[in-house]
Amino acid sequence: MNTPELDLPMAVPATGLPARVRIHEVGARDGLQNEKATVPTAVKAEFVRRLAGTGLTTIEATSFVHPKWVPQLADAEDLYPEISGLPVSLPVLVPNERGLDRALALGARRVAVFASATESFAKANLNRTVDEALAMFEPVVTRAKGEDVHVRGYLSMCFGDPWEGPVPIPQVVRVCRALLDMGCDELSLGDTIGVATPGHVTALLTALTGAGVPVSALGVHFHDTYGQALANTLAALQQGVTTVDASAGGLGGCPYAKSATGNLATEDLVWMLRGLGIDTGVDLGRLVATSVWMAAHLGRPSPSRTVRALSHQES
Amino acid sequence: MNTPELDLPMAVPATGLPARVRIHEVGARDGLQNEKATVPTAVKAEFVRRLAGTGLTTIEATSFVHPKWVPQLADAEDLYPEISGLPVSLPVLVPNERGLDRALALGARRVAVFASATESFAKANLNRTVDEALAMFEPVVTRAKGEDVHVRGYLSMCFGDPWEGPVPIPQVVRVCRALLDMGCDELSLGDTIGVATPGHVTALLTALTGAGVPVSALGVHFHDTYGQALANTLAALQQGVTTVDASAGGLGGCPYAKSATGNLATEDLVWMLRGLGIDTGVDLGRLVATSVWMAAHLGRPSPSRTVRALSHQES
Repeated sequence: MNTPELDLPMAVPATGLPARVRIHEVGARDGLQNEKATVPTAVKAEFVRRLAGTGLTTIEATSFVHPKWVPQLADAEDLYPEISGLPVSLPVLVPNERGLDRALALGARRVAVFASATESFAKANLNRTVDEALAMFEPVVTRAKGEDVHVRGYLSMCFGDPWEGPVPIPQVVRVCRALLDMGCDELSLGDTIGVATPGHVTALLTALTGAGVPVSALGVHFHDTYGQALANTLAALQQGVTTVDASAGGLGGCPYAKSATGNLATEDLVWMLRGLGIDTGVDLGRLVATSVWMAAHLGRPSPSRTVRALSHQES
Repeated sequence: MNTPELDLPMAVPATGLPARVRIHEVGARDGLQNEKATVPTAVKAEFVRRLAGTGLTTIEATSFVHPKWVPQLADAEDLYPEISGLPVSLPVLVPNERGLDRALALGARRVAVFASATESFAKANLNRTVDEALAMFEPVVTRAKGEDVHVRGYLSMCFGDPWEGPVPIPQVVRVCRALLDMGCDELSLGDTIGVATPGHVTALLTALTGAGVPVSALGVHFHDTYGQALANTLAALQQGVTTVDASAGGLGGCPYAKSATGNLATEDLVWMLRGLGIDTGVDLGRLVATSVWMAAHLGRPSPSRTVRALSHQES
């Protein structure tokens, strides 16, 4: 019974929010990396092309990690040349200098490293201490910056950690400072297990800007494990954040599985930003169509509520 | 891999928010009214008893509407005496004077009427104009107040309407004023089709308080059709709202069906409020257990992300 004008919310701007937000689309990397099914290279390339056609300007493409660790993205060398001519930014994840070599050889101009705010996750994910991981990233960042390549620093477990519980804010601030001091251009503050709430977001951002970190260097990366991602995003926008990570269709953690990571769906984010009168440049209808297309390839419906509402997709 | 301390978020209060929020639980009425399955009276009674055992203090119990219109709640006369001794508030919906008679005969001390902000929905739902519906409610409210019964006025379609599109704020303010002027003690501002976004919420609440409506008389009733309910709730809390409607387990509109209404899940709300350090008096673990129990009766998993995350419930 929806009429066409309700395919978009009424725009009613709120005071004190940014005029424009850059969405850092992570579906093709963070999303597909965490899906059970391995997607053929040609489908990945078409996915990135369709995402670029929606108006998204930053589309994280793949990861140059060892195929043994992330078999879903083992085709990075084949995929990247297929999409590198697109008129969008295509950051790639590089875990170490070997990954950087591979990315640079293909002409990548944006890379990302993946650090941890907690010792437990650094140990589990990288088999290193937090400081050993930072030491591993330092030459990666230095060499990338030497070639004028943009570097993003992901920081996982910024709010809670499955082994350590709540993560102290000063601990997060210390690792953020270290990543910026070694040359990272921007950070992505990850709520990897989805336990953040809006007051916690405000407190962390306030502590970071109080420690001299410019808010323009901060992106946020929320998970919808407990349904909090958009409320947390609103709190971040109210602190001046203008870079928000999201995953088309909520790829990368079906909320109906125990292994849920529950990435914030780009469509749910775009719906809110449109309603707030915040420009993203994204065509929501095209984005929904892209996520429905990818959901068909994955053989399951998108967990995004906006995708479901606008596509009348049934589970 | 979750440790026990992560069954609740870290409490990090934000400034400018209320210290306490009253949750108006609508699962047993608005929830079950919109489920396909008709639930046996004994199960409904047990559901309300379990909800009362979680610490919820206001549990909307049923509706005294003609059974022809809402067969799911045709057992109101049988259900109410089963639960009326519980030490909680048990408001009931009354569509007209006949419904009020039935509710008062059973000793109900809180009733609710259900108005519309738009002509299209008033026509569809009540077969009346907005003003004709108000005229129908006036003697209901007057008689209830004469017996010192608390009256809530639901106002649906406060943000968007499926036939009319975006709903002008002055139109909503006018009907709110009329409901308060006839004696309603509180209003529930309904985003019936889920299209509200936070700036729209702020604008409506600002307009209402600017028109002399005390914020203490205002509750909010958001739907998660597009995933916006918690972000909208945060915006409402920032305007001083302390009454929030929610439905245990997200009952009342499976988001995976075309007929989705997508009530905000009480668990997702409680998670956010706990994180914000806002007292609700609700035991989240008991609430999740109650929703899992009811989901088993309905034969489908809860759509609440928090229920799924904490119960490891599979679809």
